[in-house]
Amino acid sequence: MRIAIVGSGALGLYYGAKLAKAGNDVRFLLRRDYEVIRSQGLRVYSSEGDFHLAQVKGYLTPEEMGMADLVVIGLKTFANSSFSSLITPLLGPDTSILTLQNGLGNEEELAALFGAGRVLGGVAYLASNRTEPGVIRNMSEARILLGEHSQRRLTERAEAVAAMFRSAGVRCQAVDDLVRARWEKLIWNIPFNGLCALMQRPVDALLSHEPCCRLVLDIMAEVIEAANSQGPAVPIDPDRGPEMVRFTRGLGSYKPSMQIDRAEGRPLELKAIFEIPLKRAAERGVAMPKTEELCALLDFGEPGVK
Amino acid sequence: MRIAIVGSGALGLYYGAKLAKAGNDVRFLLRRDYEVIRSQGLRVYSSEGDFHLAQVKGYLTPEEMGMADLVVIGLKTFANSSFSSLITPLLGPDTSILTLQNGLGNEEELAALFGAGRVLGGVAYLASNRTEPGVIRNMSEARILLGEHSQRRLTERAEAVAAMFRSAGVRCQAVDDLVRARWEKLIWNIPFNGLCALMQRPVDALLSHEPCCRLVLDIMAEVIEAANSQGPAVPIDPDRGPEMVRFTRGLGSYKPSMQIDRAEGRPLELKAIFEIPLKRAAERGVAMPKTEELCALLDFGEPGVK
Repeated sequence: MRIAIVGSGALGLYYGAKLAKAGNDVRFLLRRDYEVIRSQGLRVYSSEGDFHLAQVKGYLTPEEMGMADLVVIGLKTFANSSFSSLITPLLGPDTSILTLQNGLGNEEELAALFGAGRVLGGVAYLASNRTEPGVIRNMSEARILLGEHSQRRLTERAEAVAAMFRSAGVRCQAVDDLVRARWEKLIWNIPFNGLCALMQRPVDALLSHEPCCRLVLDIMAEVIEAANSQGPAVPIDPDRGPEMVRFTRGLGSYKPSMQIDRAEGRPLELKAIFEIPLKRAAERGVAMPKTEELCALLDFGEPGVK
Repeated sequence: MRIAIVGSGALGLYYGAKLAKAGNDVRFLLRRDYEVIRSQGLRVYSSEGDFHLAQVKGYLTPEEMGMADLVVIGLKTFANSSFSSLITPLLGPDTSILTLQNGLGNEEELAALFGAGRVLGGVAYLASNRTEPGVIRNMSEARILLGEHSQRRLTERAEAVAAMFRSAGVRCQAVDDLVRARWEKLIWNIPFNGLCALMQRPVDALLSHEPCCRLVLDIMAEVIEAANSQGPAVPIDPDRGPEMVRFTRGLGSYKPSMQIDRAEGRPLELKAIFEIPLKRAAERGVAMPKTEELCALLDFGEPGVK
């Protein structure tokens, strides 16, 4: 199977490395790490086993990569305006596109450009950072839930892609309700990415401050209510919030991606992680006051705001 | 009339200077500004007229100041634990105490220590900063509303103190409902002090960012609802929020006191401006989610929080 990784950050490099190690023909579209990875390969430190890929197929343009059977997208969502130029050269008549990006709205953008039938979405649970060029550190039990964008049922295609990840040692499951899975990850992403980015402190600092820990739980409750207003077949249990807080205590001083984006002066994934979810909640009449406040404060700190 | 100013920051120095200029025997308890004020006097730049007081009665301890007819308190509320040591030496049998401090709870603390009958509260509208030792800049039309702590009616005493301020050129009015006046100022203080301190940006930056301007108005609406739950004789009009926003646009790049406290590493007046109001609102069943979130985030940045 030929797989093109578009967006080779901590997420794209980690999953691409796992797939390559398992013998797939994985081609990475690289930018910052190109020189290092071409000369030294890709090194993964992970609680699930360290490894080094000496030979990595890295490219600077999609034109050089050739057609793929599966395009895996790990781009930051603020780069979605490059979808057309980066993905078009990779598409054959039967190419599927799997976005592992954060938040809501990415599948819709891909569907509008390339046809809804091509699009799969995957929700990646992964606490990984790219600590230096060519080096990925993963601090969690990585896991993917993936499903079809255009139908709320399991398909052979989704099952096949999930099986491919599993045979590369990635816990992966096909799901019949991608929208529910996306919202479920937002229960974590909205409070932790948002508050850590705003305050520039890691998750353990936040959770050891009692008012902030309560704020995390309040925001989680807002997201769960919004998620359940979207009509999932199985509603999300309100206990998912406290469960995720307990899980997060195990991550130690983990810095969510949005905290790192802010620290390094990049824009934040506000549209996918905050603005579209807020809009979807409002459409169902669900108020999310604490989420809305967090979004306003994050936006106030964006580059370009006077 | 002998007046002791306890807490000679931007507020205490400004009003004390006005009262001294009008011929009252005003004695300032000084700390940081002692040397400068003793040698160079006190300089006031104000939209209401600049002036210089060459001779200022400044002291380092309350014991040297002698008994006062009126003690005016301009201390930061996080210094309220010094009430007893700073105020006791100034009290004769008929001394009144007027606190011009921010927020809620100050009159109660004074009443518990010195008797409720002595205590007046004043709500000071003043956009002044101490730009350097011995120099005050006032950017607003300063105004005080003052009233009795222990009774909800106008008294001769409150009228007399108000008249004294007026004859010193300070707009001042005695009010029959001090609690309502205190909450009315919180409509401004909670959003502007809080958000400017958190984001370390002045009021005009906040108001020119549309989501933050909406956040200011949302928080104001929460405070107005909480204020009206406290049983004022005359409810506060919901239009006070937008009115205050319009007024604030006229202040330009004004930095509220809490922004300066945070920038200079001092603790914030969270108890008086946030925590007690949140508690009073909760007692009446009023939810203030956005105010609560702001309080948690401000507390997270306090000195001593790991």
